[in-house]
Amino acid sequence: MQNLAIDAARLWATLQETAAFGARADGGICRLTLTAEDKQVRDWFKDAVEALGCTLTIDDLGNMFARRPGRHNHLPPVAFGSHLDTQPTGGKFDGVLGVLAGLEVLRTLEAAGYVTQAPLELINWTNEEGARFSPAMMASGVFGGAIPKDVVLAKRDRDGVSFEAALTGIGYKGEEPAGGHPLGAFLELHIEQGPVLEAEATPIGIVSGVQAGRWFDITFTGETGHTGATPMHLRKNALLCAARLTLAIDTIAQDHRPDAVATVGQLDVTPNSRNVIPGSVFLTADLRHPSDATLDLMEAAFRAAVTRISRDSGLEATITQVWHSPAVHFAPELVACVEAGARQAGFKARRIVSGAGHDSCYVSRVAPAAMIFVPCAGGISHNVNEFASREDCAAGAQVLLNAVLAYDDLLGAV
Amino acid sequence: MQNLAIDAARLWATLQETAAFGARADGGICRLTLTAEDKQVRDWFKDAVEALGCTLTIDDLGNMFARRPGRHNHLPPVAFGSHLDTQPTGGKFDGVLGVLAGLEVLRTLEAAGYVTQAPLELINWTNEEGARFSPAMMASGVFGGAIPKDVVLAKRDRDGVSFEAALTGIGYKGEEPAGGHPLGAFLELHIEQGPVLEAEATPIGIVSGVQAGRWFDITFTGETGHTGATPMHLRKNALLCAARLTLAIDTIAQDHRPDAVATVGQLDVTPNSRNVIPGSVFLTADLRHPSDATLDLMEAAFRAAVTRISRDSGLEATITQVWHSPAVHFAPELVACVEAGARQAGFKARRIVSGAGHDSCYVSRVAPAAMIFVPCAGGISHNVNEFASREDCAAGAQVLLNAVLAYDDLLGAV
Repeated sequence: MQNLAIDAARLWATLQETAAFGARADGGICRLTLTAEDKQVRDWFKDAVEALGCTLTIDDLGNMFARRPGRHNHLPPVAFGSHLDTQPTGGKFDGVLGVLAGLEVLRTLEAAGYVTQAPLELINWTNEEGARFSPAMMASGVFGGAIPKDVVLAKRDRDGVSFEAALTGIGYKGEEPAGGHPLGAFLELHIEQGPVLEAEATPIGIVSGVQAGRWFDITFTGETGHTGATPMHLRKNALLCAARLTLAIDTIAQDHRPDAVATVGQLDVTPNSRNVIPGSVFLTADLRHPSDATLDLMEAAFRAAVTRISRDSGLEATITQVWHSPAVHFAPELVACVEAGARQAGFKARRIVSGAGHDSCYVSRVAPAAMIFVPCAGGISHNVNEFASREDCAAGAQVLLNAVLAYDDLLGAV
Repeated sequence: MQNLAIDAARLWATLQETAAFGARADGGICRLTLTAEDKQVRDWFKDAVEALGCTLTIDDLGNMFARRPGRHNHLPPVAFGSHLDTQPTGGKFDGVLGVLAGLEVLRTLEAAGYVTQAPLELINWTNEEGARFSPAMMASGVFGGAIPKDVVLAKRDRDGVSFEAALTGIGYKGEEPAGGHPLGAFLELHIEQGPVLEAEATPIGIVSGVQAGRWFDITFTGETGHTGATPMHLRKNALLCAARLTLAIDTIAQDHRPDAVATVGQLDVTPNSRNVIPGSVFLTADLRHPSDATLDLMEAAFRAAVTRISRDSGLEATITQVWHSPAVHFAPELVACVEAGARQAGFKARRIVSGAGHDSCYVSRVAPAAMIFVPCAGGISHNVNEFASREDCAAGAQVLLNAVLAYDDLLGAV
């Protein structure tokens, strides 16, 4: 391994510089995919990588690949990056940090005159956020073979503008067919979007995978009635069922410690009046675990809880599954490189499973992939208060550099 | 006691006839207080009682007193009645039944040539519903000394029209000062607005009083977070607290069986998104019991539950009391007359405590009062589906007549 050091001040300045594209008055960023603001940051990115002598390839979904040659250019590239689009109420770090840290890796290597075994590629994935065109991670989804390209091109935003028209409109529909781009590996640095690293004062998360998740809608149907005039034994109160299920779902997560999470995030009472017994309640269940097999057990316990609550109360219940995402296990050899890179830099680090989805999930279907997390304040993201410290951003970029070189060293050894 | 029988067919026809005033296309009635529709039914009422030879007095809140002389007209009148206004989505029975059954009592006595000891008065109370001018039971509230008259006269509806202007506008602001009208007793027949009588196939409820009630607002404040990325031990989930309190409030009612009721009717989650941990929850508590002392115990248990849940979770909680109504105990001698009247007619009857408020609550502050309930389908009221059968309406009117005469007999015996 080499002892190259990234430039923390340069990385931080770059983060502040690009925050001007789509800057919100409140300090956040609104840079929805394929808008004029997205074009601004893409143009900036193009200039920045070409100034380093990189060759830019753009595919027909607007994914951008900035290539720096290595010694053995027949090898598939060791790639890294993330996304430059944001939520409408986005911050300066979600996605952006991964791309700009990748740029800092290239700048550090260029400044040192270091040439890798394999070529390197810095990638900006189109529409990770899914805020303008749903779903999220659309372009990496096509890249990974999980989403058909024609479906993506035909998606329309709220104003009726298609993805393809928006892409063409900003001049970023490239020639290369999406998915036809070989990658030897993919590394992504990202803010955690959770509170674990901050709570443990640990600057580096070595992300071993992404947990599986399943979403359900539940409705309990009882009967309305006057809260004063209806005795307890004649009631069919749907909110009592919903309260029991809310607590049961929490217990299911506690029963599968320490990695399970389970949440009722939305609950709507009908008619929701203080002197009317709730006639029906809609609520959502969000169950997640790193293991699909454990998530099967959690789902079974959830369904049993709904059945038991319905039977005990005599109220009707319905369950609809609205989303599922299988567990992602990142490539062990690449995760080991991240771990080695953190050790080399002397940073406190821990293994962590991502709670949120990322472009790396889809990329991992077609290439070895892994991720690096850095802490973010309060676990907050998609919010103007999203914040990662200069030191943690620099630590993440350093580990990214170290991991890239560690993996590249493995290629040289072959 | 006499064996006079009311005319079930005439009563039913009268109910249908007045339902034309403010008839809704869906079969319900919209007859908001002091509107043109209210004037229509008041004019009809005036004609009907004057056709019986009654003298009509109207006070300066529009309360209407139709007096039929007795043998001893120095005695304060034995009064009965209810209200002719409805909710915007009202039915044909709530309030209306009590007035029209009173009219049927007068018609039956007139047809029989029966003269009571005391004079009788049939009363139509203004604005029981509180749907146009809040709060409910406004004019009987002034009558009972619980609400200042100037407050009532100054109330405005959503269009900015004052109570006084509306009252004058329909020509029903009388000369007599509200509250200056002596009553020897007041009896009110009403639909139950609860499911108890129907469930027990009992046509007559002998209402011994109205339960006490207290309303509270509660807010739990935690922290939002990503449902996927926030481990269970780092959460501050406000909905878990709300679910625990919802179940605790139900348990408090079960702990004070059989007369307690306690309900969370409204619950609002913020931000109420399926993949965000609930940061705060607002919910309401409605606690009621026939005994103020027992309700004190229930309130203490409720407050203790909030404190315990807040302490165990580490989340902040606030409680605000937004309404209270003390228990009403009707006059035992008048309740006994209702019971005797039901027995005389051979109807199955039971003692019952009203879950809802009525004009009789306020009247009971200045005169002996009692009520008679008849079943309504499904306990439903304030709804087009509000329904009481012809047989049950007739039973209620018969018991009203019997109770009036039973009480009048007591006066004669003095």
